[in-house]
Amino acid sequence: MNLFEEIKKISEKITELLKTDDFFTEIEPQELRDAVKSYPLRGGKRLRPALTLWACGLLEGDTEKAIYAAAASEVYHNWTLVHDDIIDNDDMRRGKPSTHKELSTFAKKKYKLNETQAGKYGVSFAILAGDLQQSWAINLILKTAGLGIPENVVRSICNDMVQDLSVKLISGEAIDVAFSYKGVDEISYKEVEHMLYLKTGALLNFCVIAGAKIALKTTNNEHEKIKKLTEFTTHLGIAFQLRDDWLGIFGDAEKLGKPIGSDISSAKPTLLMLETLKRSDAESKQILISLLGKDKISERELETVKKIMKKSGSEEFISSKIAELKISADKALTSFPDNDYKKIFLDINKYLATRDY
Amino acid sequence: MNLFEEIKKISEKITELLKTDDFFTEIEPQELRDAVKSYPLRGGKRLRPALTLWACGLLEGDTEKAIYAAAASEVYHNWTLVHDDIIDNDDMRRGKPSTHKELSTFAKKKYKLNETQAGKYGVSFAILAGDLQQSWAINLILKTAGLGIPENVVRSICNDMVQDLSVKLISGEAIDVAFSYKGVDEISYKEVEHMLYLKTGALLNFCVIAGAKIALKTTNNEHEKIKKLTEFTTHLGIAFQLRDDWLGIFGDAEKLGKPIGSDISSAKPTLLMLETLKRSDAESKQILISLLGKDKISERELETVKKIMKKSGSEEFISSKIAELKISADKALTSFPDNDYKKIFLDINKYLATRDY
Repeated sequence: MNLFEEIKKISEKITELLKTDDFFTEIEPQELRDAVKSYPLRGGKRLRPALTLWACGLLEGDTEKAIYAAAASEVYHNWTLVHDDIIDNDDMRRGKPSTHKELSTFAKKKYKLNETQAGKYGVSFAILAGDLQQSWAINLILKTAGLGIPENVVRSICNDMVQDLSVKLISGEAIDVAFSYKGVDEISYKEVEHMLYLKTGALLNFCVIAGAKIALKTTNNEHEKIKKLTEFTTHLGIAFQLRDDWLGIFGDAEKLGKPIGSDISSAKPTLLMLETLKRSDAESKQILISLLGKDKISERELETVKKIMKKSGSEEFISSKIAELKISADKALTSFPDNDYKKIFLDINKYLATRDY
Repeated sequence: MNLFEEIKKISEKITELLKTDDFFTEIEPQELRDAVKSYPLRGGKRLRPALTLWACGLLEGDTEKAIYAAAASEVYHNWTLVHDDIIDNDDMRRGKPSTHKELSTFAKKKYKLNETQAGKYGVSFAILAGDLQQSWAINLILKTAGLGIPENVVRSICNDMVQDLSVKLISGEAIDVAFSYKGVDEISYKEVEHMLYLKTGALLNFCVIAGAKIALKTTNNEHEKIKKLTEFTTHLGIAFQLRDDWLGIFGDAEKLGKPIGSDISSAKPTLLMLETLKRSDAESKQILISLLGKDKISERELETVKKIMKKSGSEEFISSKIAELKISADKALTSFPDNDYKKIFLDINKYLATRDY
């Protein structure tokens, strides 16, 4: 199996399933129904449903039986994006207007509203769209029972989603929101690592847990294979995040499709930046602090930041950390059979740790 | 069983269960955890959990086995209130600051924020608190399996919540939001009745369905007894709403604990107002339209409205509609055994249709 062909195939399958699902037929009004479908049908990487299907396949389960759980992983991810985009005032998502923006544009036209009124309408409807998507994700999990997976296994996956995952992911988002009210120098590396584990790692873990439970027909979260799989996704998740930090400074704007340095102008407490601040002398630290939150970062300022990161050793530290995490993730898979799915897990791990975009 | 003693007993039981539940132990930060518990532990009428327990009792089920489903009905109701209060900019709920207000006051102190920043923080955290409460409600339903209720029945109740209930209730809220962008004279009686059925009726129906399914150990939503019970709650729900409209004009401010006429100043399209507009001559209609949305309604203006409502016959129409609905609701219970729970259903129906507050 080729990684990118496989992802493309999964993406098409998930899109088809979501497009024809019976969940939203009765949603009113039309613009709310459209909003509920919007992100899920935009595509995106489909990394999360892929992890669910591959985990099932790796454990020699029938991946067809994990298809609803895979779709649920994607829809769950999407409701968190809809609400995050409101919270972060993000106007774009996957190259299109974010849900609250789409809805405010709709309202402006339909009700002839001014900017403020339309903005309020957009946020109100987007809150409700995300709420519906959370319900939809759970509805998709429950549909797994129709594929012959034992009821208690389905309930166990459903509970993993609403208890373990929701508590972690939403706590992570809240901690991240709270960070934006603090100075970058008041936040520790450990705190950010913990936040990232909650906000993004917990969902990656859920994805493989769901696939594995379906393959093994187990309700046991302490199952040795499940432990190994979440060890894999935990390492992969942090490596993914560190690579993101790295690309945000040392990446290529054209390949990334977004300007370099936005992490600096948004004063984002990335692990790379926190490590740099910790390792820098008073003068360099002063320069960095003065740039964090600055409206526009010039080419020259970016070069200064790069130089400080290289000199302090933080760039090297983060790069070797990514390499180590990649190796640790690979190692977590040692005890699994050498099948096609294992190869694809190793491929995705390698790709995420070394990607240029 | 005395209605009010019974409600008090249920309220204490639900509060105790929610207070000691294991759902929120790991929620971070502390202020988010507090926000998730805030409304559920404030008390309120506890009408919804009571309906779940009574429906179970009426069908001679063990009400102890419906206790998690009852708590879920309450928590589900609460997440919708938290998000509604954001959408409607409501600062108060059950005599205390609403969740987003509580959180913004917290942030103002902790992070020394100005009004706008603190408001944004409050809304962001309240969105997340409501999200967590939706997950909590489902987690409570799933806990019913631990009481020996068959897995497929638990799944069926869970699906009633996330598919049927969420789609209806959230659609109802969205339609209500859309109403506020229209003039009262652009909205029909039928449209409002439909909105109210979705926004409040669907949850009352869910409450009795959940209790009945636990008593009958059935997954069948078409079960004759379940049909009769939702017929009861559908009538009761509309009567409740009409009584609310009536009290909002003809009620006593002191007994109600809120000023009379606020439905007029907020230009709320109540069924009473829509019926009045339909029945009024051009002159009266003109007067009503000029008052709708007016900042403050004087004693004299309120008297004018009352006079128009009496003269047009709309007051009588609504009052007799409430009486009819009460009778229809009672009738829906005819085929049930004459036990203590039937008496309490008849009592709550009578109380809601004739209450002064």
